[in-house]
Amino acid sequence: MNDYPFSICQVVGYKNSGKTTLMNQLIADFTKRKKRVGAIKHHGHGGEPDRVLNTDSDLHMQAGACLSSVQGESVVQMTLQDENFSLRDIIALYSMLSIEHIFIEGYKDEFYPKIVLIRDEKDLDLLDSLAGIIAVGVWDEQLKAKVRNCYTFNMNELDNCLRQVVHYITVKLETAINLE
Amino acid sequence: MNDYPFSICQVVGYKNSGKTTLMNQLIADFTKRKKRVGAIKHHGHGGEPDRVLNTDSDLHMQAGACLSSVQGESVVQMTLQDENFSLRDIIALYSMLSIEHIFIEGYKDEFYPKIVLIRDEKDLDLLDSLAGIIAVGVWDEQLKAKVRNCYTFNMNELDNCLRQVVHYITVKLETAINLE
Repeated sequence: MNDYPFSICQVVGYKNSGKTTLMNQLIADFTKRKKRVGAIKHHGHGGEPDRVLNTDSDLHMQAGACLSSVQGESVVQMTLQDENFSLRDIIALYSMLSIEHIFIEGYKDEFYPKIVLIRDEKDLDLLDSLAGIIAVGVWDEQLKAKVRNCYTFNMNELDNCLRQVVHYITVKLETAINLE
Repeated sequence: MNDYPFSICQVVGYKNSGKTTLMNQLIADFTKRKKRVGAIKHHGHGGEPDRVLNTDSDLHMQAGACLSSVQGESVVQMTLQDENFSLRDIIALYSMLSIEHIFIEGYKDEFYPKIVLIRDEKDLDLLDSLAGIIAVGVWDEQLKAKVRNCYTFNMNELDNCLRQVVHYITVKLETAINLE
């Protein structure tokens, strides 16, 4: 069990391996079952996230604020500029917000329980280099044979196997130990 | 003194009274003096804040996440959907983030120490209806005479009087009691 009041599951894989597709399906499934889900994504090598420019909140950042929020109706948007902020710091913030499950897209070198997506044979190195793998999604049925000792599913059949994947990772996460 | 590890100052006034102008000047002044400043803005009656649509992080929200973040380089953007989230909840989050001063634009019915901006005579009702006023910015020198028992400055001369305003509110905030 981890020390947080929620389960944590990463979805990792190389570019175009279907991370966002799987993230969205998992989030939608948990949400339909009335779970409060939080998502975290690493922008990868894409630089800073896109933002709406020259809103008042953006002007506050331009003026020098290192943290700026805007609240309208039931939505709060927050922007933080801090080069030392880690994934763990983001998760600590989430622990204040009544979240029941966190799904994390990317940050593949982190140590939380993770689903790895394998697009083709040359992605298989991830299985040896990453920590905390609890499941593997492959795009080619033949790749299943190359995955040993780990629950594996076919991403092409995600609509059919999603319930099973969810059931499997839910049980697994309840007993998972974060390696952080 | 308030219970937080930072000072809190609101900037309030009716539409087009110069709130964002004053906010940006205050933020820039404090930032130049190496203070870590946080800003919070109420979007008023403008509905939900603008957002960049169909980013992966936005798709996570569309899939049902009630909290979604994206981190790229030194920037973290977080979006929260929660109709019960209050200004006080936002401030509680800020208390985890090594902020030294918070400036808040809007939320005029809240109870933190505040600067009120008075564009013209019909705005004067704010002086009677709001709690925690520590300073008043007017756009018409003649309005100064109508403000009693409160430090007052002229927004048209902000470039000249900013240092004095900052000095005044800094001393005031050190001894201010939040009325929340």
